[in-house]
Amino acid sequence: MNSNRITQLFQIQYPVIQAGMIWCSGWELAAAVSNAGGLGIIGSGSMYPDILEQHLIKCKAATDKPFAVNLPLIYPQVSDHIDLIIRHKVPIVFSSAGNPKTWTSKFKEHGIKVVHVVSSAKFAKKAEDAGVDAVVAEGFEAGGHNGREETTTMVLIPMVADAVQIPVIAAGGIASGRAMAAAFALGAAAVQIGSRFVASVESSAHINFKIKVIDSEEGQTLLTLKELTPVRLLENKFYHQVIEAYQQGSNKEQLANLLGKGRAKKGMFEGDIDNGELEIGQVAAAIREIKPAAEIIQEIVAEFNHTIEQIRHIRY
Amino acid sequence: MNSNRITQLFQIQYPVIQAGMIWCSGWELAAAVSNAGGLGIIGSGSMYPDILEQHLIKCKAATDKPFAVNLPLIYPQVSDHIDLIIRHKVPIVFSSAGNPKTWTSKFKEHGIKVVHVVSSAKFAKKAEDAGVDAVVAEGFEAGGHNGREETTTMVLIPMVADAVQIPVIAAGGIASGRAMAAAFALGAAAVQIGSRFVASVESSAHINFKIKVIDSEEGQTLLTLKELTPVRLLENKFYHQVIEAYQQGSNKEQLANLLGKGRAKKGMFEGDIDNGELEIGQVAAAIREIKPAAEIIQEIVAEFNHTIEQIRHIRY
Repeated sequence: MNSNRITQLFQIQYPVIQAGMIWCSGWELAAAVSNAGGLGIIGSGSMYPDILEQHLIKCKAATDKPFAVNLPLIYPQVSDHIDLIIRHKVPIVFSSAGNPKTWTSKFKEHGIKVVHVVSSAKFAKKAEDAGVDAVVAEGFEAGGHNGREETTTMVLIPMVADAVQIPVIAAGGIASGRAMAAAFALGAAAVQIGSRFVASVESSAHINFKIKVIDSEEGQTLLTLKELTPVRLLENKFYHQVIEAYQQGSNKEQLANLLGKGRAKKGMFEGDIDNGELEIGQVAAAIREIKPAAEIIQEIVAEFNHTIEQIRHIRY
Repeated sequence: MNSNRITQLFQIQYPVIQAGMIWCSGWELAAAVSNAGGLGIIGSGSMYPDILEQHLIKCKAATDKPFAVNLPLIYPQVSDHIDLIIRHKVPIVFSSAGNPKTWTSKFKEHGIKVVHVVSSAKFAKKAEDAGVDAVVAEGFEAGGHNGREETTTMVLIPMVADAVQIPVIAAGGIASGRAMAAAFALGAAAVQIGSRFVASVESSAHINFKIKVIDSEEGQTLLTLKELTPVRLLENKFYHQVIEAYQQGSNKEQLANLLGKGRAKKGMFEGDIDNGELEIGQVAAAIREIKPAAEIIQEIVAEFNHTIEQIRHIRY
């Protein structure tokens, strides 16, 4: 049994991290992942502070293993969220979408480990300079909100690994042990997996969305709405409305009006798969079954070990 | 020293293939790569038949190792090219941009090995059904013309490897031994490398373009002109004209007029780096030096071996 800089940093068994995702990763998924030896993350971006507090209380009751909260730093009530994270002694924060300089030192004062999500080597360096303990380097193929550089995981991970001294967690396009082994070859010390855990039993995604994910085919996601915030969407009626709006030359305001409010909740949490915004990664096309989180982790780790076993003797 | 299905198929030492690229890969680069133990490819898409013939004659004079020709099947004088390939006993053809059913059997009748370039598992299956010997699975991050699915190398390779029985060559975002090791973990038996060989001594790219490539930074390429044929361009004056044209809501005809004719030659071969069309992959940002092709291959293979050495004991 190996350990590395990430398993040591988080005190976890496997370097497999479940991405904090709006509407899909509440306490039930986070606790299941942490109990299975990975790192579970509560996605706080879709929660009001009182809801987040309920999730923190339930998560702590469901696991005595480390877990984390994903915190989009542009969240309107971010300081309320931060107070809750400190008060409930959450051991690890994954911050995203904002400047890591603003809050990292406050977290560190309270003994909280901080990881920041980046989409370029330049931002990785800035996050390291801000004092974070690790970075998630997330490629273009990832679901949900995404970097403007469009750099893919294959290109991004080695550049980030070369740019910083802190450990790198690879994200984007990873749903299997083969991809985990590839990420390690590229220089990552762990993987962050989103889409695969959307299609887990414990995910809070609506069952209609989970079924839509496992039924999806290659080429059915698109990184779009770049004028607002770039987001990778799964093909549905709303997605085609977005494409049509572009074909008609819609401006930023018209796109914002089309998107409206609450579409992500409608699609992913309430199960309106036609009119909702369905955020998922490209790798959804390779996901075929809804399984318990613990089984997903066991499968990924077993395939990782098998992959290394297969390539370990190759030399040229 | 290992061998695998690709080194056996092509009778080469290293499973490292230099991509056939318009204006950048003539006989000099192809011969240098083949002489160094990889597979060199002449990019015929930018050559008139009489020019291709000169390159075939010179390549055969410069190496007695196997080499290949890349043949875009939509090329206007494709049957002239095919006659030359057969007459000069080129052992291997990499076909792209067209239906592999049309010509594969003719090549096979003449004992020529055929590899087809695909951007999805669906097209890989079709190529296998057409009788090709292997496929190149090329991800979104690759330079030049590119698939409409936008599937990245990390997501594409395992899906293609699962879909076909024939060996898979990974392309897109690969310029190092780390990425080569990652591709092997994902299920590839070889890598095809373009951008890194553009910045080689023997590449026929203009020195201005080579310097522009090694000076480029992350986020400076963009897959664009999707209404015509999707192509990944390096940031320059022309690239900004394209972005401006989109912002002004230009239609397909206006974009075609802006592109005009001969822009790729102007940029990549004649060295007009402002007004030319510069085709390069995302991984250009990680390329820092112009080196001889043989040195590039030795570096990649050494880094591959080192990477496998580093990860071979990891188990969880």
